[in-house]
Amino acid sequence: MTAHSATVELAQELIRRPSVTPEDAGCQELMAERLKAIGFNCEFLEWGEGSEKVINLWAVRGESGPIFAFAGHTDVVPTGPEEAWLFPPFEAAIHEEKVYGRGAADMKGSLAAMVTACERFIANHSDHKGRIAFLITSDEEGPAEFGTVKVVEWLEERGEKITWCLVGEPSSTAEAGDVIKNGRRGSIGGWLTIKGKQGHVAYPHLAKNPIHLAAPALAELAQEQWDQGNEYFPATSFQISNINGGTGATNVVPGHLKVIFNFRFSTESTHESLIERTESILNRYGLDFDIDWHLSGEAFLTAPGDLVNAIVSSIKTVSGIDTELSTAGGTSDGRFIAPTGAQVVELGPINKTIHQINECVSIKDLDNTSAYYEGILENLLAQK
Amino acid sequence: MTAHSATVELAQELIRRPSVTPEDAGCQELMAERLKAIGFNCEFLEWGEGSEKVINLWAVRGESGPIFAFAGHTDVVPTGPEEAWLFPPFEAAIHEEKVYGRGAADMKGSLAAMVTACERFIANHSDHKGRIAFLITSDEEGPAEFGTVKVVEWLEERGEKITWCLVGEPSSTAEAGDVIKNGRRGSIGGWLTIKGKQGHVAYPHLAKNPIHLAAPALAELAQEQWDQGNEYFPATSFQISNINGGTGATNVVPGHLKVIFNFRFSTESTHESLIERTESILNRYGLDFDIDWHLSGEAFLTAPGDLVNAIVSSIKTVSGIDTELSTAGGTSDGRFIAPTGAQVVELGPINKTIHQINECVSIKDLDNTSAYYEGILENLLAQK
Repeated sequence: MTAHSATVELAQELIRRPSVTPEDAGCQELMAERLKAIGFNCEFLEWGEGSEKVINLWAVRGESGPIFAFAGHTDVVPTGPEEAWLFPPFEAAIHEEKVYGRGAADMKGSLAAMVTACERFIANHSDHKGRIAFLITSDEEGPAEFGTVKVVEWLEERGEKITWCLVGEPSSTAEAGDVIKNGRRGSIGGWLTIKGKQGHVAYPHLAKNPIHLAAPALAELAQEQWDQGNEYFPATSFQISNINGGTGATNVVPGHLKVIFNFRFSTESTHESLIERTESILNRYGLDFDIDWHLSGEAFLTAPGDLVNAIVSSIKTVSGIDTELSTAGGTSDGRFIAPTGAQVVELGPINKTIHQINECVSIKDLDNTSAYYEGILENLLAQK
Repeated sequence: MTAHSATVELAQELIRRPSVTPEDAGCQELMAERLKAIGFNCEFLEWGEGSEKVINLWAVRGESGPIFAFAGHTDVVPTGPEEAWLFPPFEAAIHEEKVYGRGAADMKGSLAAMVTACERFIANHSDHKGRIAFLITSDEEGPAEFGTVKVVEWLEERGEKITWCLVGEPSSTAEAGDVIKNGRRGSIGGWLTIKGKQGHVAYPHLAKNPIHLAAPALAELAQEQWDQGNEYFPATSFQISNINGGTGATNVVPGHLKVIFNFRFSTESTHESLIERTESILNRYGLDFDIDWHLSGEAFLTAPGDLVNAIVSSIKTVSGIDTELSTAGGTSDGRFIAPTGAQVVELGPINKTIHQINECVSIKDLDNTSAYYEGILENLLAQK
């Protein structure tokens, strides 16, 4: 049997704890033990009741100064049919230099890399500058109601601010470190009802057809240039995902039309500006309408600066890769941390297999990720 | 017990035969007996198999010359809950000078009035000009597949043409004779599918949103002036009755959009012109689409002439009413007869209660209708 690195072994230990959202299954306890051993002060924070109860870990080392926080989650998505896996999804089998299991890439491998990076860094720099923290939740893949968002509120109440935040989400494409996410688009959805007056198609003067009334406004919304994007973001996009009107009868003008749409938006727009502009277009067409808005997350961007530079340079030093800065893809818990003013960047292994059958991570990527993290700590917190 | 007119008594006899589509329940046999007695030659024409079998009556009196045809149907729509009726729907009860029952107004009252009008007319004019005919179906309220449309084909095969056709549909509003229908709008429906490419709302450049692509074309279709109508018809109207696109998921761009629409059109348009113009608008927007078209009936108009004049004058003579010419409302079997070149007008009792619980017709309207019909025969076919 080959001996594996501390990072691989810790990743396996974490994978073997079946922590499907919102279960933590002891993962945070395992991390806390390792962190306490190197001088971290650990607090477990629980919110929610019964089956919704969520456990979060806040661990910090150092007394004062800027906080560098590793952020991540111990919960994983369900396995799907276990018999479809090459290896049982909570066994953490190693095959052809990869660790297989649910959460291997998203994101127990990253959690292990964070812990081992700290262990090595602190062995060399027990007198580091500022503070190192861990903000770990077990509610990222679920409703995300009692997780990071609550910890951030709790920190704000205590007057604590994170300066630099590294989220361990699997950001990479072909090998660990080739892509980092220095921002995310915002996302806001609208549930629109346009009201007309039901009637018979043979007597259109007695009806008000909401489909006819809405069509030119929807055409304008679909063609609107919301912004031009910028160096880091593509232009804001508007997409109608669902439209439904009609009783099923072919001779009845329906009384209302329902439209569901979504904005993915750049930092050139805000959710307030998009709401105002959408409603102003609908009003310009004289429509009688209601909209329920749901904001999933504001757009955020961490422009090149302390954190981005520390990460780019660490990746280059460890693996020689010139990393790419990207803001593409879905949302992450970074959306809750960025609004506090923190610089937030995501760096983790490749995301090709996440949420799938046979999720896996390569041993090389795990070890590189841990090395990247250690280098970042060196760049930001080592006493020179 | 009050004695009622022959028209009222025959209407009652017809109502007592529960001829829900496509059943005739002996109504045509009863009419044929009365018509044979006054010199009509009667033929029963059957089409369809099993439960779809439809019986039709073609009766004609006279050897040659222009044909004046009464057209109508013996079938009725279902009663709905019988306990909701004031009187059993097939009892033909008389209450406050009205005959109650399913089919009283639509259109067994008219059928009775046609037969008694002929009985009186022939008693006085056994040597009338031209020919008097009855084209009676039991498939008007249903699919209308094996009824009037088939009889018209059969007549065409025999080289027979109807010159004047009086359809007994209940055309009136406040009292029998106040409105006649000298035409009907056409009706054509379209089942439109607009094709796009399904994708994720976060990656709009990889998808083609059929709702976005369709919106400006639908806006143009809704705003298009198809024609201006004319003296007899309102402008052609286009109405979308149903629109459906989307998977239900709020983050998926759907792969196609389905739209159902209907034209009610004047004689200023034809179904061919509307199809051509609709498809040309859709093509102009570069849409990838399919449409299934279903023509319910071409528009037709019987401008003032022999038939309209004979009807207007008869109504004026009998009841003093200046009748109104109208083309409003839904379709009737007139749509199948008009294309043969016949002048077609609808005249019958008031339509307020048709297809409803407590359908009824007033005795006065029944007797006036019979008198109108007799006067029309006088005006067109009496030897002067």
